[in-house]
Order: sequence, then C-alpha cells, then structure tokens
Amino acid sequence: MIDSRLSNLYEAYRLEHAFSGNPETLYHSMQYIMDLGGKRIRPLLVLMAAESAGGSAEEALPLAHAVEIFHNFSLVHDDIMDQASVRRGQPTVHERWNTPTAILAGDNMLVLAYESWNRYSGAGKLQAFETFTATAKAVCEGQQKDMDFASQYQVGIPDYLGMIEQKTAVLLGCALQMGALSAGLNVEESRLYYQLGCSVGLSFQMIDDHLDSFGTQAQTGKRLGGDIAEGKKTWLYLRSTQISNEVNRLFAELEDEDRIQAVRSLWVEQGLDVGLMELAESYHQEAQAYLAELKAKGRDVQALNALCEWLLARQH
Amino acid sequence: MIDSRLSNLYEAYRLEHAFSGNPETLYHSMQYIMDLGGKRIRPLLVLMAAESAGGSAEEALPLAHAVEIFHNFSLVHDDIMDQASVRRGQPTVHERWNTPTAILAGDNMLVLAYESWNRYSGAGKLQAFETFTATAKAVCEGQQKDMDFASQYQVGIPDYLGMIEQKTAVLLGCALQMGALSAGLNVEESRLYYQLGCSVGLSFQMIDDHLDSFGTQAQTGKRLGGDIAEGKKTWLYLRSTQISNEVNRLFAELEDEDRIQAVRSLWVEQGLDVGLMELAESYHQEAQAYLAELKAKGRDVQALNALCEWLLARQH
Repeated sequence: MIDSRLSNLYEAYRLEHAFSGNPETLYHSMQYIMDLGGKRIRPLLVLMAAESAGGSAEEALPLAHAVEIFHNFSLVHDDIMDQASVRRGQPTVHERWNTPTAILAGDNMLVLAYESWNRYSGAGKLQAFETFTATAKAVCEGQQKDMDFASQYQVGIPDYLGMIEQKTAVLLGCALQMGALSAGLNVEESRLYYQLGCSVGLSFQMIDDHLDSFGTQAQTGKRLGGDIAEGKKTWLYLRSTQISNEVNRLFAELEDEDRIQAVRSLWVEQGLDVGLMELAESYHQEAQAYLAELKAKGRDVQALNALCEWLLARQH
Repeated sequence: MIDSRLSNLYEAYRLEHAFSGNPETLYHSMQYIMDLGGKRIRPLLVLMAAESAGGSAEEALPLAHAVEIFHNFSLVHDDIMDQASVRRGQPTVHERWNTPTAILAGDNMLVLAYESWNRYSGAGKLQAFETFTATAKAVCEGQQKDMDFASQYQVGIPDYLGMIEQKTAVLLGCALQMGALSAGLNVEESRLYYQLGCSVGLSFQMIDDHLDSFGTQAQTGKRLGGDIAEGKKTWLYLRSTQISNEVNRLFAELEDEDRIQAVRSLWVEQGLDVGLMELAESYHQEAQAYLAELKAKGRDVQALNALCEWLLARQH
C-alpha cells in the first residue's frame, strides 16, 4: 500500500545523493544507517503533500531527503543515549564503530540535512527552513523530556502525550507541511497538513504502545512487553496509576516474564487495552477530519488518505 | 587588545538571546557552556570583517552568534569524545549533567546556530549559509580524522596540517567570510577573508602546540607537556620521526614527567622548537600578506590586523 511511484522516485534520489567523503570512517557510518532501510514514510509524506497541494514531487525531493537524513540522525544519537545495540536487526552505529564516531556521524548528518534543504530552490524555501528548524528543536526537547521522565516520580498524561508529540509526531507534521509549502501554499494554509501529520503520528505511537503490550510476536516481529519489562512510563502505566497503585506493586515485586504477564492481565482488567485503542482511534478520527478539511479546500487527498490508513492498520 | 566596542556589542546580543525553553535541563546545560566564557574571538571576527568590508557590525550580529553557538556545540561534543572532565576550569557538560544530555544539548545548539543564521536578513544570506554549512562539515571531518590518527601507524605531516586546518582554522575563516559577505562582498571577494582566517588559525594552533611542549606554566595556565604525555601525533612528533626513531623509543620506555623531560630535550636537540616557530611564523606571514592584499583593495584592515597580532603574540 506504499505508493511505489513516489517511493521509487525518492529511492533513486537518495542513492544518487549517497554520502561520500573523507574520512571514510565517518561517511561509511552515515551511509550505513541510511541504508538499513525503514519504510521511508517521512520523505514519502513530503512528496505526497507536494502533489496533494498541486506541486511537484520531483521539485520537493531535496526537502524529502532533508527530513529522512534528520530522522536517521536522530536514530543514531538516540541509540547512543538508549545504549541500544541493535537497529533493524543490525548493529547500531556506535556498536559497529564506536560512540565518538556515532556522535560525529549524527552531527554531520544534521548538517547535511540542512545542506539538502539548501539544494531546494522552489517555493516557500525559507518557510520550509523555519518549519524544519522548529521541528528539529522540538525533537531534541522531546527526547530530553523522555529521559527526564524516567527519573521523575510524577508524570502527567498530558506531559506524556506532549513528549510523544514532540519526539515522534511533529516530524511527520513537518514532512507534510514542507511538501505543502513547496507547492506554494502559505504558512497558514500548510498548517492543516502539519496538524494532519501530528494526529497520524500520535495515533501511530499509541498503536505502537498497544502492540508492545498486547500484540503478538507475529504482528510486531520484536519481543513483546519490552515497555513493561523496562518499567517505561507509557500511557498504559500512567493511566493505570490513576486507577490504583497495583501496577507499582507489580513493578516492585516482579521482573521479566512474570511482570509482563501480571501487568498485562491487570491492564486488561482495568480496561486499558480498550482505552488505549480508543485514544489511538480519537487521533485517527482527528486525522480524518483534517483530511476532510483539506478535501473541502480542493486538495487531492486520496494518496495521503491511503497511506495514513495503511500506517494505522499496522499489521506490518 | 580586544576591541571592547565590538565585544560589548556582541556580549549584549548574546545575553539578549540567552537560551531558554523546556525542558530546563536541556536549556540550562546549553546556556552553561555559553556562559563559561572564552575570548569570543569568532563572533568578533564576524563583526570586524563586516566593518572592514564597509558593512554594519550590528546587522551581522545573528551571524556572529551562529558561529559562537556552533563553536560551543563542538566543544560540548568534543569533550564527550575526549572524555574531558574540565573545560575552562569548570566541569564539562557531560560531567555536570550526563552524556545523553550533553549529546542533546550539542544537537540542539547546532539547530539553534542555524536558527540564529535565519535571524539575519542582510546581504549574502544564502552565501553565508553555504560557507557555514561547508565549514560545519569540515569541522566534523577534522574531528574524525583527529580520532583516526590516534590509531593510525602512518600519519603524514600534510595530513596532520590538513586535519588541524579543518578542525580549528576553517571556523575562523568562516567567521571572517560571513562578515565580509554581510557587507555585500561576493563569494570570490570574501574568499580573501576566509584565507586570512585559515592562516591565522593555523599559526595560532602551531603556537599552541609549541607552548604545550616548550612554554611555561605562567604562559599557558595549564599543565605542560600534555601532548607528550598523551603521545599525541603533533607536528613535533611527526617531524621528529622523520629525523630518527628516538622519539618512539622514548614513548615506549618512559612515562609522565620522565617522558616529557626526555622528549622535550630530544626535540630541542633536533631543532624542532625553532622549526615549529618557523612554521607558525610562515602562516603568520601568509596572514599578513592577505591583510596587505585586502588593504590594497581598499578594505579597512586596522582592527583586524591588531586582533591577529594580539592573537599570535599569545602571552595570554
């Protein structure tokens, strides 16, 4: 269900603009993360929004690439911070090379994301810069909040949702808005695209959290219950503590598989598996409302709508 | 000997644009490194070049601030990579907070350097972006080369000088060029300013290396012989291995103070203390030639000349 015409267009551009330079250590590590794959959702959103608003996907390619480079930069640095050793089934950059090289690879990718922006020469160039820069700041802030929450006793659900929005959703919004700006829409008009991306991102993340606790290995391809095992302050955990202190007791007394089983049962009892899907669904409906609004303004939303539905079906 | 009018102008701008935001952890750590001090040479170079080429220092302030933010970003990340615990007599950011926060603080500062660039609205805006971005890449590459050299058996003197140029000199060149661009000079005309900055930077670094091995504590205020104790592949080391293998024997057999004394004596015997100052002087003369060329083109080089001479006198 991913649009293969636009995917192929971006993939050709990405390979044509593969990183190379000296020293090779640095550029190889940068290209390594870019080549690990992923669904390339963000660049696709840029190109789809460009066409949806009557612009040219081809012209928007440097912006699409900037967003994808930025996304990969954030993966490299997040993996260092999270001490993650595996990414998409392969060693992370700091694991395969070392932490200093991973820090520098990320730094250089952030610079190259801006360089890619500067290859763009169509409409709304500076507005795209501003959206991109505001988003980059938000992503850094979101990641710091995520780390801060781990050691904070009191985290509110709005704080959690705000953190998720900054850490993951705004970059989808940014991608759509940059595409819309490239089609000549002004900042205000392009804002609807931004909001659409945020809603889709939030819905996506809630489904991701749901799958982590209630999915099957077949659905996710990764170990289940990771959030519970780590004691992460997700929506499920935070909502559960509002109902009773039972989850904290289980966290304190149990570990690993025992904890995962017991907490999962508790959350089902508390109706949180349903509650989280309802929350995901409310963001999904928000996204549909934005799509309807865009359609009413004469935008072509068919491809965007299909991509959003595909993303939020999540059997992949 | 630092121009106090322009220093004060920048300092006021810097404080007016102090970082603030949420989460505080992140913004406090960013402002902490900016407030640790330093001579603010780079923003001063931007402002001086602007005036030298007939432009307005005031208008160039956002560019000056971008360069200073970038410089501080690189300090934060370099300190992580070098596992340095002290910077300007105070704990480094990763020491005072932690490594993940220091990584994010640096990332966010890099983004805010670009944001500061975007506050600039005078002549040569996109050219300034291009100089800045090319320089940022070069700095990352230089830092990676510096790390690679530590584990490489064979490092040539041209490789070493090229690394130093990327790691430290080009940012001075970039600062001067951005100032010149802001005065309306085209890329070619502003190139002389860039070259001036590189020559000054290389001369400065050679003097720094000289002081590290042959200076007095009173001159540098820091522990002497650090490069020798660490076994760093500086010009002195590399040149010495071209003459004989004696330095490697001393490195293998001696440590700490004994090694410092013995290697220093060897290098004096080999005439390298004089040789390094001659190299520094040759870059200094290059800088003077660029200043003369600028003067011949009608640029006002008095203040720039005074700053360069002050920097390269280095009794501070």
